[in-house]
Amino acid sequence: MQENMAHSPNRQFRPLPVPSVTVEGFWGSWQDAVCEHTAATLLDRCVEAGMLRQVDPDQPSPGIVIPIVTWLGTPQMFWDSDLAKSIETIAYSLYRKPNPELEARADAIIDLYQRLQDPDGYLNSFFQRIKPEWKWTNLRDFHELYCAGHMIEAAVAYYQATGKRKFLDVMCRMADYLVRMFGRGPGQVRGYCGHEEIELALVKLARVTGNRAYMDLARFFVDERGQQPNFFIEEAIRHGRDPKGVQKDTLGYSQSHMPVREQTKVVGHAVRAMYLYSGMADIATEYHDDSLTRALETLWTDLTQKQMYVTGGIGPAAANEGFTDYYDLPNESAYAETCASVGLVFWASRMLGRSPNRRYADVMEQALYNGAIAGLSTDGRTFFYENPLESLGHHHRWVWHPCPCCPPNIARLVTSLGSYIYGVADDEVAVHLYCRSQARIELANGARFTLSQDTDYPWSGDIGLTVEAEAPARFALSLRVPAWARGPRLAVGGEAVDLTEASADGYVRIEREWQPGDRIDLSLPLEPRLLRAHPAVRQDAGRVALMRGPLVYCLEGADNGVGLNSILLGSGAGEARTANLPDLGGAVVLDLPVQRERAEAWGDDLYAEKERATEPDTARLVPYHLWDNRQPGEMLVWVREARG
Amino acid sequence: MQENMAHSPNRQFRPLPVPSVTVEGFWGSWQDAVCEHTAATLLDRCVEAGMLRQVDPDQPSPGIVIPIVTWLGTPQMFWDSDLAKSIETIAYSLYRKPNPELEARADAIIDLYQRLQDPDGYLNSFFQRIKPEWKWTNLRDFHELYCAGHMIEAAVAYYQATGKRKFLDVMCRMADYLVRMFGRGPGQVRGYCGHEEIELALVKLARVTGNRAYMDLARFFVDERGQQPNFFIEEAIRHGRDPKGVQKDTLGYSQSHMPVREQTKVVGHAVRAMYLYSGMADIATEYHDDSLTRALETLWTDLTQKQMYVTGGIGPAAANEGFTDYYDLPNESAYAETCASVGLVFWASRMLGRSPNRRYADVMEQALYNGAIAGLSTDGRTFFYENPLESLGHHHRWVWHPCPCCPPNIARLVTSLGSYIYGVADDEVAVHLYCRSQARIELANGARFTLSQDTDYPWSGDIGLTVEAEAPARFALSLRVPAWARGPRLAVGGEAVDLTEASADGYVRIEREWQPGDRIDLSLPLEPRLLRAHPAVRQDAGRVALMRGPLVYCLEGADNGVGLNSILLGSGAGEARTANLPDLGGAVVLDLPVQRERAEAWGDDLYAEKERATEPDTARLVPYHLWDNRQPGEMLVWVREARG
Repeated sequence: MQENMAHSPNRQFRPLPVPSVTVEGFWGSWQDAVCEHTAATLLDRCVEAGMLRQVDPDQPSPGIVIPIVTWLGTPQMFWDSDLAKSIETIAYSLYRKPNPELEARADAIIDLYQRLQDPDGYLNSFFQRIKPEWKWTNLRDFHELYCAGHMIEAAVAYYQATGKRKFLDVMCRMADYLVRMFGRGPGQVRGYCGHEEIELALVKLARVTGNRAYMDLARFFVDERGQQPNFFIEEAIRHGRDPKGVQKDTLGYSQSHMPVREQTKVVGHAVRAMYLYSGMADIATEYHDDSLTRALETLWTDLTQKQMYVTGGIGPAAANEGFTDYYDLPNESAYAETCASVGLVFWASRMLGRSPNRRYADVMEQALYNGAIAGLSTDGRTFFYENPLESLGHHHRWVWHPCPCCPPNIARLVTSLGSYIYGVADDEVAVHLYCRSQARIELANGARFTLSQDTDYPWSGDIGLTVEAEAPARFALSLRVPAWARGPRLAVGGEAVDLTEASADGYVRIEREWQPGDRIDLSLPLEPRLLRAHPAVRQDAGRVALMRGPLVYCLEGADNGVGLNSILLGSGAGEARTANLPDLGGAVVLDLPVQRERAEAWGDDLYAEKERATEPDTARLVPYHLWDNRQPGEMLVWVREARG
Repeated sequence: MQENMAHSPNRQFRPLPVPSVTVEGFWGSWQDAVCEHTAATLLDRCVEAGMLRQVDPDQPSPGIVIPIVTWLGTPQMFWDSDLAKSIETIAYSLYRKPNPELEARADAIIDLYQRLQDPDGYLNSFFQRIKPEWKWTNLRDFHELYCAGHMIEAAVAYYQATGKRKFLDVMCRMADYLVRMFGRGPGQVRGYCGHEEIELALVKLARVTGNRAYMDLARFFVDERGQQPNFFIEEAIRHGRDPKGVQKDTLGYSQSHMPVREQTKVVGHAVRAMYLYSGMADIATEYHDDSLTRALETLWTDLTQKQMYVTGGIGPAAANEGFTDYYDLPNESAYAETCASVGLVFWASRMLGRSPNRRYADVMEQALYNGAIAGLSTDGRTFFYENPLESLGHHHRWVWHPCPCCPPNIARLVTSLGSYIYGVADDEVAVHLYCRSQARIELANGARFTLSQDTDYPWSGDIGLTVEAEAPARFALSLRVPAWARGPRLAVGGEAVDLTEASADGYVRIEREWQPGDRIDLSLPLEPRLLRAHPAVRQDAGRVALMRGPLVYCLEGADNGVGLNSILLGSGAGEARTANLPDLGGAVVLDLPVQRERAEAWGDDLYAEKERATEPDTARLVPYHLWDNRQPGEMLVWVREARG
């Protein structure tokens, strides 16, 4: 692997639009599940919850807000975001699988929003229809800009997927309203949202419209965050609220406790943090802003070296839906919200905006294949909000939730997965993810080609890439070699490439004039790996986690009966035998020789001065993201390790 | 140890009154701390909370109940119980250390209660002064009989300690009122309290007054509990409340889901369960009721073999302050309320009412020396409510709590400890606990003597007992030999007694005519023991707990720095060296060779395919009940075990 001198920090790698990539294989199956079930389910459940009554100008206002304990079916200030994420999912799904009925339903909702929009461009069904007197009174808690952000993302997606401009135009008018309202000029508000999202959404809108004002507003929100005097404290005082409620701890909850460039520790609400960092990374890319990139690199190290589950789950605590102490990673009570891992994928993908680097792409893959996709059942019908790494068997996916943020979030990630595979610069394509797919690419240098991946990844580590083009095309192709791959092999046009000299960023860069039909073969050995956690992670002490490629594996009761903590793994993960399990869509499972403590041999004593006798047994481990797709039962990621 | 044929199930062993036993040594120091600090502190804090304003007829009613979130300083329906337990503590403390000022304060409160009492005998400051319209409307939730029970216990204690009858007379009038109100006769209520306590209190009152009606009422409450139709469901319907709120799960919370004799699983609120079983055991003893005893034996097995921490802590969950699944014993999040362990001591002591049996006495000692006394700081000034078995260092004793049940509960147990040492039948004294002390005993058979214990137990296992009397006295002395003691030795009058033949109940019974000055020497070896938990206790998998005699030991940050889960104990607890630690009142601490994982050697990776390197170290373990008495820091009971 040669040192890549061509990676200038001032290049910009941007994702391909979703419609440019046809996804098959592993992610294709997930996309099919979302297209066939999840997309319509999301809309059905939003409607059942009463969200359309809130939006529809022809219906009477559903009225006041009932206390939070009975909030199911009660108008919510974040409902526009749930509806928007559902429409975004539908948009991507329409591209993959045309569905006139679903498209008509989405069009009808967009029509409602168009009619609801105020003449000045303002659009938010809760503050227009339920609590007009609360409009712009509490940027910290009321999700007003957050909702706008998700509607912008949905509008961009719907435009890209269908070519219809109506929703995009609506949201441009709202964005224009925001451009007028926020800023440092006279009469403008120097505020930002308590729940970050608008930043990354405005970047998307700017990219698709070419309107720089949206990008500048995103940068403004990033730059203003946490500045003194603190906007949220000033806002509370202005509206007669006790500013004590917005002192440091609470400000950290929304990452507004200090200017973003000074932040070094990942704190607060996990999803909010991920969305903020995503927006920061976009701004860093678009404005070549090294000061933001430096802060983000520090935060990345903080998160991935001290606060992340092996599944890419983040935010261990339910209390703040977020972060606690360093190395505090409880398994059974892990919150690890699906949305947070989805958000980590967002952030990681955007850290690739300035140059390829497996430091980010490896974690993107880890979160994607484990903490994020676990949030969806294989049939696309049920959802996890929390993603523990251990369960007694009482934790199951549900059909809906009063705060339905996770279902459309994982669904839109799955259906837009094609846009995470590549990063495209003027004369270079970085391959971040491996997945059977065809990407239609046109570079700024004029090269036009289709890049095809032929692979059964992640079940197999063999990947064949083909450049399909009508004419030779000159560009660099950068292939990620994951840090976990031991002994990877690469051949270009059948000729082996030496990978022993690792490049610092973990990508192999091949720059040449590609001929139509040129083929690259990459082989990533998928030997199971036994991982241990840092000694400070008390919850994983004396335990190992098993990974194969990007997948974390777990024990399930369905294969191993009750008492998963009586299973002791030996040191040799090399003894694992793989099998394909038809019950789990042919997933590769691992069978390992283990020792097992026998409760029967122990007797009735609760505590005693005796050994726990063991006997040999075989344990089966299945991919973590597939757990709870068969019969209910226990689950365990961090398995006890037999010593000596 | 000879089989004890003399233990008829129809004998009755009752505790000695508190004033009959002078306690010194280990428990004497704790009693001094309570007498010097806790007793007055309890009263001060009750007064600061506003409890006397609720009781005092001359003061305006403190008014309505403010929602529970701001309940500090707000009148509570359980306040009479807190005040009563404080007076009970004061009563015992006055016997040990006369304190005219404290006695005068208690007298003044008793005067207030006397004046508050209704002409018909009814007494409850909350329902007389705050919410008269709620009187007797909700036996399930309103703690009305529970408060009466604690006031009866306090009245009995105050009478025994001071000889003053006023409080006792007041509570007899209340008890007479209850005797009229509750029963199966016409116009009587066939109900019982949602928070058990009145049962055991009425037994105490019957014993001290000789009034059998009180005992019969206690039996009535026990017999009626959980009968069909369920009283709590009927009561809810009668008062227009949704009976759905009192279906099976909720009824189990107060152990009223089925008749008590049919209950086989310990469920619900832990303190309530313990108080119920205590009352049941009293009734079993007083009425020779084998059907109750059989039910209690089953419940005892259920609790101690499937639901008890090694500390004698019980009730792992905060959500119901009680029990969850079998073998579910999380350490860091353990609720294990101090009151629940105190209640377990109550129950265990009453299981000794029909005959001595170390099955109960060993657990009584285990709960007393660990889960219960941990609730009090050594200076008697601060308190634990929850008693986790692992802490990151954020869990500390507090000076007060809006639900201040634990401080007076542990305080009254400590000051009444003398009454738990012995069980006295007509012609037999059972020695359940070892503690330097002098007990003045008069048996029904006429024998009068003082039984002295000379020992540094639990720091030393050598116990000398002397019978001091003016004349020879014929009686049996039964000495508990704890199940944990390996190689105990016994000599009577210098002559060794063979203990190799263990009796089924674990007591050595010596029946003879004792001469003044007769001496018994019992030696219980205190070799440290490494305990493992049942394989189904997932939270203790791969871990050991260390005990010495009745004491559970733990690692503390004060001795071992940070990262207690990086410490690996070898198999040889025999290598432990003991030391006396002046910082902890000369407590015996244990120093052990261990292996320790070094975070520095590991590096920055959060997860990696490498071993956690270890190096030899020495760890210090201190008695669990003494933790958090020095500088704040981590604590850990279940220490990782090095294997092989």
